[in-house]
Amino acid sequence: MPSPRVGVLGATGAVGGVLRDLLRDWDDVRYFASARSAGAELDGRVVEEATPEALESGDLDLCFSAIGASASLELVPHAVRGGAVAIDKSSAWRMKPDVPLVVPEVNGDRALEHNGVIAVPNCSTIQMMVALKPLHDAAGLRSVRVATYQSVSGAGKQSMELLRAESVEEHDLRGDWTMEGEEFEEEAKIREETRKILELPDLPVQATCVRVPVLVGHLEAIWIETDEAIEPEQARSLLAQAPGLRVVDFPSPKLAAGVDEVLVGRVRRDPATRNGLALMVAGDNLRKGAALNAVQIAQLLVERSALAA
Amino acid sequence: MPSPRVGVLGATGAVGGVLRDLLRDWDDVRYFASARSAGAELDGRVVEEATPEALESGDLDLCFSAIGASASLELVPHAVRGGAVAIDKSSAWRMKPDVPLVVPEVNGDRALEHNGVIAVPNCSTIQMMVALKPLHDAAGLRSVRVATYQSVSGAGKQSMELLRAESVEEHDLRGDWTMEGEEFEEEAKIREETRKILELPDLPVQATCVRVPVLVGHLEAIWIETDEAIEPEQARSLLAQAPGLRVVDFPSPKLAAGVDEVLVGRVRRDPATRNGLALMVAGDNLRKGAALNAVQIAQLLVERSALAA
Repeated sequence: MPSPRVGVLGATGAVGGVLRDLLRDWDDVRYFASARSAGAELDGRVVEEATPEALESGDLDLCFSAIGASASLELVPHAVRGGAVAIDKSSAWRMKPDVPLVVPEVNGDRALEHNGVIAVPNCSTIQMMVALKPLHDAAGLRSVRVATYQSVSGAGKQSMELLRAESVEEHDLRGDWTMEGEEFEEEAKIREETRKILELPDLPVQATCVRVPVLVGHLEAIWIETDEAIEPEQARSLLAQAPGLRVVDFPSPKLAAGVDEVLVGRVRRDPATRNGLALMVAGDNLRKGAALNAVQIAQLLVERSALAA
Repeated sequence: MPSPRVGVLGATGAVGGVLRDLLRDWDDVRYFASARSAGAELDGRVVEEATPEALESGDLDLCFSAIGASASLELVPHAVRGGAVAIDKSSAWRMKPDVPLVVPEVNGDRALEHNGVIAVPNCSTIQMMVALKPLHDAAGLRSVRVATYQSVSGAGKQSMELLRAESVEEHDLRGDWTMEGEEFEEEAKIREETRKILELPDLPVQATCVRVPVLVGHLEAIWIETDEAIEPEQARSLLAQAPGLRVVDFPSPKLAAGVDEVLVGRVRRDPATRNGLALMVAGDNLRKGAALNAVQIAQLLVERSALAA
C-alpha cells in the first residue's frame, strides 16, 4: 500500500467518487471540496474546504484534482506550492508545454518530467490512445478519423440526473460542447491531445463528437491510416498483447463500465485507402477516462520513487 | 388527390402506421396485415388478412409492402400478379438486378424501369444518398466512411416497447444486426445499396453501425473523398439547393423526427486527405427512411402516368 499523503480535490463529484473508490486502500487520503460540500462526512472522513490556504499548508505529497478547469487553474498552484505533485483531470493544464499529458501505457515516462503538475487527457482521447499506440508503434500512424458516442457522465453528475429524469421520448443525440470555429472544443481537444501524447505534431486527426443517452462509458468508431500495411489479424494480435486493452467482439459502454481495461474490437480493413483499418473502442470515461488514469500516474510516480515523500 | 387503388401490406407495423398517415388523403386505400391483426378496425377501415388470394384478386394498382423480407418474398409476387406495382421497404428485393432501388431525389427515373416491384433502400442508405448525391454530381465520389447512430424504431415496434420498458441504467449501444463475415448485414447493405443507387459498382463504402437508445431518427457521421476539390462553403451551398435536404447546425434524431427533409450539417474539411469532407446527416427512419420514400415513389409513378390505372 502506497504511503504518500494524498489529497482528493473535488471528492464529491462524479470522477471524485471513482477516485475515492480507487484510493480505498491507500493509507493517508484527505478529501477536499467546495464550501458547499465541506463539513460533510464521506467514507468516515470529514470533507475539508478546498481553500488556497488549506492546500498550500496541507502537507500533501500528491493532490488529485477532479474539479473544473477554472477552479483548477486557481487552486492547483497552491497545492504545488505546498509541495504536492498535482495530477489534474481538467482541461486547464493539458496543452501547457511544461506539463506532461500522460496515459501510463502510452507515454508513462513523460510523467517523470513534470514541474509539479501532470495532466490527465480528455476521456475520449485516453481510450483512443491506449488502442492506437500499439498500432502506431507497429505501422506508423498517418491519420485518424473518429466518431464518438459519449455518455452523459462525461458532462458531470448533473447531466446524469437530467438523463435519469428524462422520458425516453425526449432522448436525443446532442452536440453539447462549446463551438470553436467549425468544430466542438471537444473535437479540437481530441486532435491536440493526440498529437501531444503521440508526439506527432502534424498528425491529421478529425473527430465528430456526439453525446448519447447512456449514463457511463464512451464508444468510438475509428478509422486510421498507417505508413506500413497492417492486416486486421495482425492488428488484433498486437492489441491483444498490448497493456490496458481487452479485445472483444463488440465494444459497448455497458461492457466497459466498471472495467479497468479499454475494450477494442471490430477491427476490419478500410477498403478506401491502401493501409487503412477500422476499429471500435469503448472505455469507462470516469474510470480509465479520468480517475483510474490519474491513479495509475500516481502509482507510476510511487514505483519510480518520483515523489518527495 | 391521386386515384389509384392502393393496398398497404403490414398496415399495423411501425412503418405501416406512418404509411397510413401519409396516405390519409388518398381516395382508395385498403389495409392488409397478418391473420393476427386482420379484422381489427384502423382509421375506420377493417384490416384485411394478407393472403396470397386476397392480394392476387385485390384489384390493386399499387401495393405498399411494409412487412419483413421473407413475408415479402412470399406475398409481393401475388400482388404483382394481380396487376399491382409493389413498392417494398424490406431488404428482399433491393439487390435483384431487375428491381429498381429508388430514392426519388437521387435516381427517380429508375422507378419507371420496374418489372412490377420497386424497392425502397435501407433507412440508413436513403438519408445518406439524399445528402451525397449533390456532392457526387459536383465533385465525383471516391470513397465513403460512415458511423451510424440508429434509433430502435429501425428494429420495429417491439424494440421501441423494449426501450420504453428499459431503465436508463440499462441503456447501452448495441450492434444488434446479423453478422456477415467481419461486418454486420446492415453495414453490407449500406455499401451494396449505395453502389447500386449511385451506379458506382466499385465505390469503397465502409459503414460502422451502432444502435442507440433513441426511439425515432437516425444520425450519421460521414467522411467522403471526392475526385475534385470541394470547399465546405461550396458543399453547404450545394446541399442547401438540393431537393429533400435542410441544412442545420447540428442534425439530430429529435430534430429530424416527423420532418420530411433529411437534415444535413457540420460540413467541414477532412484534413487527412486532399479532397475530403466530413458531414453529418439525420433523418426520420420511419418517414423518409421508409414510408415517405415509398409514397414519393408512388407519387412519381402517378405523375408520370406509369400506373396501369
